[in-house]
Amino acid sequence: MTRSTRPAGRQRPSGAFGPARDEARDARIIDAVLDLIVESGYGDLTMGAVAARAGVAKATVYRRWASREDLVADALESLMLPAVPAGAMAGTLREDLIATLTHSSACLHPQGRRFSAVLAGVAGSHPQITDTLRERYIAGQREGIAACLYRAEKRGEITAERVARLLAPGRLEIAAAVGVLVWQEDLLGELLDVEGIARLVDQVLLPLVGGTATA
Amino acid sequence: MTRSTRPAGRQRPSGAFGPARDEARDARIIDAVLDLIVESGYGDLTMGAVAARAGVAKATVYRRWASREDLVADALESLMLPAVPAGAMAGTLREDLIATLTHSSACLHPQGRRFSAVLAGVAGSHPQITDTLRERYIAGQREGIAACLYRAEKRGEITAERVARLLAPGRLEIAAAVGVLVWQEDLLGELLDVEGIARLVDQVLLPLVGGTATA
Repeated sequence: MTRSTRPAGRQRPSGAFGPARDEARDARIIDAVLDLIVESGYGDLTMGAVAARAGVAKATVYRRWASREDLVADALESLMLPAVPAGAMAGTLREDLIATLTHSSACLHPQGRRFSAVLAGVAGSHPQITDTLRERYIAGQREGIAACLYRAEKRGEITAERVARLLAPGRLEIAAAVGVLVWQEDLLGELLDVEGIARLVDQVLLPLVGGTATA
Repeated sequence: MTRSTRPAGRQRPSGAFGPARDEARDARIIDAVLDLIVESGYGDLTMGAVAARAGVAKATVYRRWASREDLVADALESLMLPAVPAGAMAGTLREDLIATLTHSSACLHPQGRRFSAVLAGVAGSHPQITDTLRERYIAGQREGIAACLYRAEKRGEITAERVARLLAPGRLEIAAAVGVLVWQEDLLGELLDVEGIARLVDQVLLPLVGGTATA
């Protein structure tokens, strides 16, 4: 898989003044952040170390990111790929969920166990980082599942009322599936392959959302 | 709540030679470990620092724990209370699960967010620590739920076949509930109170184990 080279929320508005963005350079900076976190954690991360690792001037880093928290937030976001798998619309809710969660799960472990390592490296380090993980990463997983539910609703597989209820504040059905997905290694002692993702869909998600349960 | 002063697996055999165990002192040492992890993480933890913090000689620490990994394993275990809540046998599966998970959840956060802080402090730090978390802590949560299922089976609320299937290797129903419980703060952005635990039981666990679902 490839990571996005466009960190969301920091996009250059079209027609803005200033030097044009160099996406390859930005991607190199983000890569440097991830490498440094994996190697020595969040505590030792500095803008200078990032610049040195990426082979750019420190001012170049500061021109796009005001603080290391901003930089880490974008680096974390670069590991999250919410893109809808091709052909998701065509299948059933079950097929769509398996494709979506397999995609998410692969993004969790793009290069060996890089995401786990980054997660461990930044966990508890800074409130903004914790918020980023929760708000962007966890929310992203949730949105992927929600998109499957909306598509199933359009196909008539599930009622609008049920979708609304599952997505209401305080409901825990989708959170339960996201928890298994995100913490699979700690929780299960293994990484889920496609067969494992199918078990997650069949044993947990479909029974809870009211699709076809394969018990 | 109180933490156990008897780390399991390191119990003094009755009739063993050597000086008698001082449980209050052991508890002070374990407390020192937890405090130091919360304050500065696992990386800076040394046997000497633990001894100094607990006000004992370093030799005293080494007499009971061969390495800091052993010490951290027992410290983590001290945060896990698998005791069955009183009166659990008397109720229904739903009541038993709510009591058991409320108890577990309270143990997760005995002193403010101490457990979360310890977890963040040791995550990814050492394979033995990760194994301890998984094998003792995650397994402990799972055993608490399994005990509820066995009691429900004895009361005739759930069949033996269903219990056996839920506890078979590779099944994810119970793991899904454990995931929400253990990572509730990261996953949900909040700590579950008793009402939240009841939602976890009603929305996730009971529907998945085949008890009375309150959808």
